[in-house]
Amino acid sequence: MKKFEEKTIEKEVLYEGKIINLQIEKVELPNGKQSAREIIKHPGAVCIIAITDEGKLVMVEQYRKALERSIVEIPAGKLEPGEEPIITAARELEEETGYGSEQLVHLISFYTSPGFADELVHVFVAKNLYKIENARGADEDEFVELEEITLEEAERYVAEQRIFDAKTAYAVQYLRLQKLIEQNKQD
Amino acid sequence: MKKFEEKTIEKEVLYEGKIINLQIEKVELPNGKQSAREIIKHPGAVCIIAITDEGKLVMVEQYRKALERSIVEIPAGKLEPGEEPIITAARELEEETGYGSEQLVHLISFYTSPGFADELVHVFVAKNLYKIENARGADEDEFVELEEITLEEAERYVAEQRIFDAKTAYAVQYLRLQKLIEQNKQD
Repeated sequence: MKKFEEKTIEKEVLYEGKIINLQIEKVELPNGKQSAREIIKHPGAVCIIAITDEGKLVMVEQYRKALERSIVEIPAGKLEPGEEPIITAARELEEETGYGSEQLVHLISFYTSPGFADELVHVFVAKNLYKIENARGADEDEFVELEEITLEEAERYVAEQRIFDAKTAYAVQYLRLQKLIEQNKQD
Repeated sequence: MKKFEEKTIEKEVLYEGKIINLQIEKVELPNGKQSAREIIKHPGAVCIIAITDEGKLVMVEQYRKALERSIVEIPAGKLEPGEEPIITAARELEEETGYGSEQLVHLISFYTSPGFADELVHVFVAKNLYKIENARGADEDEFVELEEITLEEAERYVAEQRIFDAKTAYAVQYLRLQKLIEQNKQD
């Protein structure tokens, strides 16, 4: 996995923030020439495809400052340092939705923007949901609104661009695929 | 789509780069308190789910400095200022794979990392591919290796984490879904 490797000649950290760092790396290309790469370092995140017993998707609507609008997403959150992703997933599910899950399973992990960021998102599927009494709430600066929607509603939200991010688009497609597989089994 | 809006009190641009800018915005939260948001501005991008007449996915392997490894992805590239995404898609397909397409169709657009970046990726499906003679090559600092793989190979690559990014994971799931829908039609 080192094909076309770009060796770092020089690295400069330009910003160390609350969530992301920015660094510029001067690299040597496979042809011997030099170039610069702008790289965002991110702690990584989890997201949860939480499916109710009625087959609905548990969603949160929140304002995203980067987009200057609110969108409807599956629950998600950043990893704390050293935290196992499944712990983060259980915590974020509780904090954002009030749900616990008796069946939390890792589905896939993917980088969101490999061209400039190392953010890795771990995707979990949560089933057998139950309401947690006195659930921990969201972070102090997080305002989210809970919604449970059918697959058909989710696909309408995609068409209307109310669902508008990669992980949630992946989740909606996943649910469509699972329903089709289920139907085929029953036929 | 302004639910829970966070009003900007102050904005500071910390870095203006080749591909990304970094800005910090001090915001007023819905509860009147203040917080800071770290935001990456990105010009946006396209990616192409290019499917050969044999039903194979056209992939490019390239080194991603942010990940310090190479991964296998669907063809993709950044928007030039003012460029229509479908133009970018046709150009990137040609430059990275040498293919033209007689049927290039917008499928979906999604934000890759709404928590900290405004990067919007437009996903296209390209069919009826043909080889372009004397196709324009990749950018000067881009080194990519072309590969055409079956859906089953793509799913193995996902399991092996050679395919490891959101847009390509979405593409593989899309192809699985389409094949299942096709099969059901024939039954």
